[in-house]
Amino acid sequence: MLLQLSTWQEIDVYLERSRGIVIPIGSTEQHGPNGLIGTDALCPETVARGMDDKIDIVVAPTLSIGMAQHHLGFSGSITLRPSTLIAVVRDVVQSLVRHGFERCYFLNGHGGNVATVNAAFSEIYADSSFNRQAGNEPGVRCRLGNWYDGHRVRALSRELFGGAEGSHATPSEVSLTFYAYPDAIKNTRMSPRIAPTGPILDAADYRRRFPDGRIGSDPSLATPEAGERLFHAAVEDAVEDYRRFLGAR
Amino acid sequence: MLLQLSTWQEIDVYLERSRGIVIPIGSTEQHGPNGLIGTDALCPETVARGMDDKIDIVVAPTLSIGMAQHHLGFSGSITLRPSTLIAVVRDVVQSLVRHGFERCYFLNGHGGNVATVNAAFSEIYADSSFNRQAGNEPGVRCRLGNWYDGHRVRALSRELFGGAEGSHATPSEVSLTFYAYPDAIKNTRMSPRIAPTGPILDAADYRRRFPDGRIGSDPSLATPEAGERLFHAAVEDAVEDYRRFLGAR
Amino acid sequence: MLLQLSTWQEIDVYLERSRGIVIPIGSTEQHGPNGLIGTDALCPETVARGMDDKIDIVVAPTLSIGMAQHHLGFSGSITLRPSTLIAVVRDVVQSLVRHGFERCYFLNGHGGNVATVNAAFSEIYADSSFNRQAGNEPGVRCRLGNWYDGHRVRALSRELFGGAEGSHATPSEVSLTFYAYPDAIKNTRMSPRIAPTGPILDAADYRRRFPDGRIGSDPSLATPEAGERLFHAAVEDAVEDYRRFLGAR
Amino acid sequence: MLLQLSTWQEIDVYLERSRGIVIPIGSTEQHGPNGLIGTDALCPETVARGMDDKIDIVVAPTLSIGMAQHHLGFSGSITLRPSTLIAVVRDVVQSLVRHGFERCYFLNGHGGNVATVNAAFSEIYADSSFNRQAGNEPGVRCRLGNWYDGHRVRALSRELFGGAEGSHATPSEVSLTFYAYPDAIKNTRMSPRIAPTGPILDAADYRRRFPDGRIGSDPSLATPEAGERLFHAAVEDAVEDYRRFLGAR
Amino acid sequence: MLLQLSTWQEIDVYLERSRGIVIPIGSTEQHGPNGLIGTDALCPETVARGMDDKIDIVVAPTLSIGMAQHHLGFSGSITLRPSTLIAVVRDVVQSLVRHGFERCYFLNGHGGNVATVNAAFSEIYADSSFNRQAGNEPGVRCRLGNWYDGHRVRALSRELFGGAEGSHATPSEVSLTFYAYPDAIKNTRMSPRIAPTGPILDAADYRRRFPDGRIGSDPSLATPEAGERLFHAAVEDAVEDYRRFLGAR
Amino acid sequence: MLLQLSTWQEIDVYLERSRGIVIPIGSTEQHGPNGLIGTDALCPETVARGMDDKIDIVVAPTLSIGMAQHHLGFSGSITLRPSTLIAVVRDVVQSLVRHGFERCYFLNGHGGNVATVNAAFSEIYADSSFNRQAGNEPGVRCRLGNWYDGHRVRALSRELFGGAEGSHATPSEVSLTFYAYPDAIKNTRMSPRIAPTGPILDAADYRRRFPDGRIGSDPSLATPEAGERLFHAAVEDAVEDYRRFLGAR
Repeated sequence: MLLQLSTWQEIDVYLERSRGIVIPIGSTEQHGPNGLIGTDALCPETVARGMDDKIDIVVAPTLSIGMAQHHLGFSGSITLRPSTLIAVVRDVVQSLVRHGFERCYFLNGHGGNVATVNAAFSEIYADSSFNRQAGNEPGVRCRLGNWYDGHRVRALSRELFGGAEGSHATPSEVSLTFYAYPDAIKNTRMSPRIAPTGPILDAADYRRRFPDGRIGSDPSLATPEAGERLFHAAVEDAVEDYRRFLGAR
Repeated sequence: MLLQLSTWQEIDVYLERSRGIVIPIGSTEQHGPNGLIGTDALCPETVARGMDDKIDIVVAPTLSIGMAQHHLGFSGSITLRPSTLIAVVRDVVQSLVRHGFERCYFLNGHGGNVATVNAAFSEIYADSSFNRQAGNEPGVRCRLGNWYDGHRVRALSRELFGGAEGSHATPSEVSLTFYAYPDAIKNTRMSPRIAPTGPILDAADYRRRFPDGRIGSDPSLATPEAGERLFHAAVEDAVEDYRRFLGAR
Repeated sequence: MLLQLSTWQEIDVYLERSRGIVIPIGSTEQHGPNGLIGTDALCPETVARGMDDKIDIVVAPTLSIGMAQHHLGFSGSITLRPSTLIAVVRDVVQSLVRHGFERCYFLNGHGGNVATVNAAFSEIYADSSFNRQAGNEPGVRCRLGNWYDGHRVRALSRELFGGAEGSHATPSEVSLTFYAYPDAIKNTRMSPRIAPTGPILDAADYRRRFPDGRIGSDPSLATPEAGERLFHAAVEDAVEDYRRFLGAR
Repeated sequence: MLLQLSTWQEIDVYLERSRGIVIPIGSTEQHGPNGLIGTDALCPETVARGMDDKIDIVVAPTLSIGMAQHHLGFSGSITLRPSTLIAVVRDVVQSLVRHGFERCYFLNGHGGNVATVNAAFSEIYADSSFNRQAGNEPGVRCRLGNWYDGHRVRALSRELFGGAEGSHATPSEVSLTFYAYPDAIKNTRMSPRIAPTGPILDAADYRRRFPDGRIGSDPSLATPEAGERLFHAAVEDAVEDYRRFLGAR
Repeated sequence: MLLQLSTWQEIDVYLERSRGIVIPIGSTEQHGPNGLIGTDALCPETVARGMDDKIDIVVAPTLSIGMAQHHLGFSGSITLRPSTLIAVVRDVVQSLVRHGFERCYFLNGHGGNVATVNAAFSEIYADSSFNRQAGNEPGVRCRLGNWYDGHRVRALSRELFGGAEGSHATPSEVSLTFYAYPDAIKNTRMSPRIAPTGPILDAADYRRRFPDGRIGSDPSLATPEAGERLFHAAVEDAVEDYRRFLGAR
Repeated sequence: MLLQLSTWQEIDVYLERSRGIVIPIGSTEQHGPNGLIGTDALCPETVARGMDDKIDIVVAPTLSIGMAQHHLGFSGSITLRPSTLIAVVRDVVQSLVRHGFERCYFLNGHGGNVATVNAAFSEIYADSSFNRQAGNEPGVRCRLGNWYDGHRVRALSRELFGGAEGSHATPSEVSLTFYAYPDAIKNTRMSPRIAPTGPILDAADYRRRFPDGRIGSDPSLATPEAGERLFHAAVEDAVEDYRRFLGAR
C-alpha cells in the first residue's frame, strides 16, 4: 500500500502485522543527453511500487531531492547539502518511529546519496547510543538498499550493456525510466559513444570532465524492453533484500 | 514540462524563454477517516500538472514532506522540524538560482507549511541582504501560493460544502484527491458529522481535541465530481497567481 | 509586574496564582523619515506595561531584535536570521517552562516576525510531538498576538488615518511612539505624501522600491494624541486576547 | 543617541562622524532575595545611557537575555544556550557592519556572558580569516567591556563593601539598580549574612550550593546612594575604555 | 615532515614544491580484549610517518576522534556525531585551502568514518558548486584512503590470518599497534576464538551482539612481527595511492 | 594510563577507583620563526604524560586542533570555528559521561581556546539545567586548566625570561617543546628581538601587526634545559590542580 493513498487507520491496522516500511530515495539531477532529470528518483519509486504489487508493505512518498552537488553545473539539477539531507532522513525516521515502525528500508536510486544517508543513520543511532538507559529498547533499524545493486540487476546490466553501462546516466537506469515513462523517451545523439570516466569533485570540475553529463556510459542503448526486464529483476532483488532485512534478528 | 521528465538541455532551452518554476509542496499527514495521508502533497501536484497543461512552465518534483508535527499522534504522519524544512527550501532555491531561475513559485497544499516556508524565504533573502555589494543583482524572488486560497476555489468550496468545509481534512481537498485518485476513494463513517474545532498545539494535544483527525469538517461529503470542479478552479486560480508573480516588476 | 524588576521569590509566588507570561517582541529597523528605529519594539513594550497596570501578569524583557532582513539597506536596522530567531524563542520558552510557565503570550510589534515566530512555536511543540511518552503532560502553549491587530486598534486606525495608514512606518505606530516618547518626536518632511506599495524581498530591492523606507503610509499624520487613543485601544485588545488565551481549555 | 529613538537618517549622519556603537548586553536571572531579575541587563543599560549623556555615541537596544543556564533552578531566570547567543551576537554585528559600523563595544553586565560572547567574536572574525582575499579590508572590531570591571568601580566597590561584595548578587550591582529603579527597592532579610562561595556548574547543583541565589555577597548592604556613586564611576570607566577602543589603531 | 614539528616558514617553502598534505584520521573506541582503544588512530598515524620517511610530504596531526557511536557501550570509546565530524573535516580543509593546499589526503583507520568523511567532502565541494562564479578556480580535492584497503595489505592479511581476520578488532590492526607500541602488548584470553558477525546498529545492540567487542576476528593471533610486515605493506600502498591522487589531473 | 594504549576492560577497572580523566587540548598554529606549529598541543600532551607518570589517571588522546582563526594568515595553521569546537567538546564529554566519567579535566595549551571551551562547558551543563527532573543526578563537572598558568610555571617563566616571555610564541612554551622534541629544535634569527604587542582580531590584521607571528616575546631564548625545568613545574602544577578538582565537593 502506498502511504500517500492510505488513511491513518489503515496504517494502524498494517502496524499490527508489520513494522517495516519502504522509503524510495533518489535525486533530481541531469542524466546526460537522453536521461531524465528525475531518473534517480523515478527508478526506486517504480521498483518500490513493483514491490508493493508483490508483498505486503507500506511505501512512503519518494524523497526526490538528494545529494547532487556535483551536478549543479547542469540546468535543472537540485541538491541538498549533506547536512540538510541528514536532517531530513533523521526527521523522517523519527516520525516513523513515533508510530511504531522499526525497520526503515530506504530504496535508493543515486550513488551520491550513499555516504550521506549512511551518515544520517549513524546520527540517528547516536541519539540512543549516548543514552545510558537506552539498553533495553527494541529501537529502530535502517537500511539503504540500491535498486541497481542486487545480483539479478547487476547480471542483467552486464548481459545487456557490458562495458557501455558506465556509472552515471547508465543505459540500465535510462531503460528503466523509458519503460516506466514511455512518453518521455528522448532520441538524442551523443558523442563520443562512450563517455569519459574520472573522479567526481565539485560542479565546475564535473562539467569540465564530463561535458554532456554522462560518465563512462552509452545510454543511447537504452530501450523500454530492456527497462522492463530490469524492472522485474530489480523488484525481485529488492523484495529479497527487504525480506532479509525484516527477518534479521 | 515536468522537471523530472526533462533533460538538462531541455531546461537550458526553457531558461531562454522563462525564468519561472513551479514547486509543489505539501505534507504527509493524517487526513481523517476517509482522507488520504498524501492529500496535501497530491493536491498541489495535481494542480501543478493542470497548470502545465495550460501554460509553459517547468514543474519541479513535489516536496511531499512538510511541517506536520501536530499530526504525529496519528499513524503514518511524517514531519520535518521547521529548521529542517527551512534548510530544504533554502537548498532547493539556491540550486535553482544556480541555473538562472529567478521566480520560484511554491504551490502549497498545507496550511502548516506557511509560516516555515515564509521564514525560509527570509533566510534566503537575508544572505543577500547582509551583503553590502549585493545591490545591483537581479536576485531571486519566491512566492508561496496555496492552491485552496484562490478566489475561484474559495467560492466553489463555499458553494459546495458551506459550513461543512472546516479547516483540516476538508471535503474540498478530499474531493480533489478522489478526482485524481479514484481507486483510492474510501467510504468511511464518521461521527460527529462535523468535527470539533480548536487551536493546534502539539501532537498529543491534537489527538485529544480531534480524535479522528478532522477539524471542523465533514469530508463524508467529498465526491470526485466536486473534485473535478475544484481542480479546474484551482488550476485557473494558480495560473492567474503565477502569471501575476512572473510579471511583477 | 515586570520580570526585570522582580525577585525570584516574587515570581515563585506569582506562579502559584497564574501560569501565564507576556513577552513583548519587536524589531530594530528603520521606520521612515520620522519613525523611530525602535518603533516595533517600543510599541509592544508600551502596550505590555499598560496591560500590567490593569491585570495581574508578569512581563518579560522585550526581545528588541527581530527578523528585519529586508530593512538592512537603511542605517541602524538590525536583524536576526530566521534560524537564529527560532533558536532564541525556543530557548526563552524552554527557560520559562522550566519554572512552570504554561502560557507564553508574545505581544508582537512587527509583521516580519510573524512567520518566523510561528515556526519557532512549531519547533518547540515538535520536541514533545516526537516523543511517544509525552501524551499525558500539560505542556506549554504559545501565542503570538500583534498589538496592532485587535479590532479596537484596527477600527481606530481606520477612523484616524484611513487610506494613509499603509503597512510600514504607519501613522498609527508612529503615533504610539510619539505618545510614549514625546521627547523623540521628529518633524520631517516626506514626499510623496503617501509612500508606494509593493512586495517585500531582500534589502537592496526594498531600498529601490521604497526609497525613504515607508510602505503605503503617510506618517506625517502621526500625533501623540492619536497615540494615546491607540494605546488605550491596544491595551484593551491585548488584555482581552491574553485572557482568552489564558482561559482557553 | 539611543538607536531605538533615532531615525535611519540620523544614523546616516552619525556614521559620517563615527564608526562606533555601544551595545549593552546583560542577562535575565535571579539575583538573590533583594536583587532584581533584570539586574545584569539594567546595569549596563543604565551605564550606557550615562555614557550617552557625556559623549557622542549610538546606544543599541539592550540584549537582555544572556547565558544564564546555571540560574534556571530559580524562577524567572531565562537563558540562551551558548550556541544561540553566538548566533545572536554574530547576526547583530553583521547587521551593524552592513551599515558601516566598525567598532562594536558590548557593555556587559554578566560574568556568565564573557566566554560565550568572546567565542562569538572569534566566530565573526573567522569568516574573514578563512577568506584569502580578505586581507585589505578594514574589517570590524569587537570588544566586551564589563561595567563592573573598571578601576574606578573596582576601587569604589572595595571601599563600600569590602569582603561583602562577593561575586553574584553583589551589593554593588544591587545598589546600582536601586539607584536607577528606586521604586523597585526590596527590603528582604537574608541569612547567612554573607552567602557561601563555590564553583558554578549546572542549575540543580547551583541551587544546592547557593540556596537563596547569592554567591559570597551581602546585598542587604545595597543602597541607592552607593548606587549613584557607582553609576558615576562606571560611566567614567566605560567612557575611558570605549574611547581607548575607538582610538586604537 | 610533520606539521606539528615544523615552523610556518618551513610550510611556506614546502608549498612551493607541493600542494599535497596527508591527514591521519582514526577513532578512539574499544578494540576487543587485547586491542588498544587507540588502534584506529594509531595505525594511520604510524603509516603516515612511514610515508614521511619515504617521500616528501607534510603530515597533519592525527584526528583521533571519529564516528564511533556504536562502540559507546564499551568504556573508553569516544565518538563525534556525524554532523560534528562533518564540521571538523570542513574546518580543517578550509584552513588548509587558505594556505594553498589543494590535495587533502585523509589516511583513515576506521571503517565507521568512511560514510561521514565522504559526506563532509561533498559538503565542502557544495560550497563552490552552489557558486555560479566558481568555474575557473582550481579548487581543492579530497580523498579518503584506508590504510587497510590497499592490495598489498589485503593480500598480506589474507595470507597471515585468513578467515580469522574479521572486521573489527582484526589481528592485522592489532598486530600493527603491537609493532608500533610493543610496551602496550596485552595477552588476553578470549572466547569464542572467532567472534560473531552481524550488522552494526546502535551501542546497546552492538554490545548485545558482540559481548567482548570483536566482530568476526581472532586478534589473539596478532604479533608484532606480523605488524612489521603489515606496516611496510601499508606504507607502500599508501605512498602509491597518494602519488596517484597527487598526480591525477 | 593512556586511553589510546588501554583496552576497554582496563578502563572498566579504572572506573571502579576513579571517575576522573585528563584530556589534553591544544591548537595547530604558527608559533613564530622557531616555534613548532604543534606547540600548543604538544605542551599539554607532554605535561599530561608527566602527570600520568606520577598519579593514577587516564589521559585521553590530545585534541590537537583548537580555535586559531587569527593565525590563518600563516601557513600550516588550522582552526575549528568556535561553533565546531563547542560541538567537539560536547560530544567528547557526553561520550565520557556515558561510561561513568564525572570529572573531565581539559589540560589546555592555547589561550585562544579558553573562551570557546568554557562556552562548551555551559552548553553541556545547559542540557541538564533545562531539565526539571535533573535535580538529583550527580552530573558531570568539567574544568579547563592551562598548563602555563600554575604558580610554579608562572614563577619559573618570570625567573627565566622576565619581560621577554610575551604572550604568543613564548620562550617558555618553545623551551618545553625543545625539551620534549630535541630533534625539532630550530635555530632561527628573528628581529626585532622582542616582538610587538597588540590586540588579536582576524587573520589579516594579525599578520599585519605581528609579521613573524610572535607577540611580545623573544623565543630565541628558548632552551631544552629551561624546557625541562618548566616541564617538572608544569606537571606539579597540573597534578595539584587536578587533585583539587577531583576532590572538590
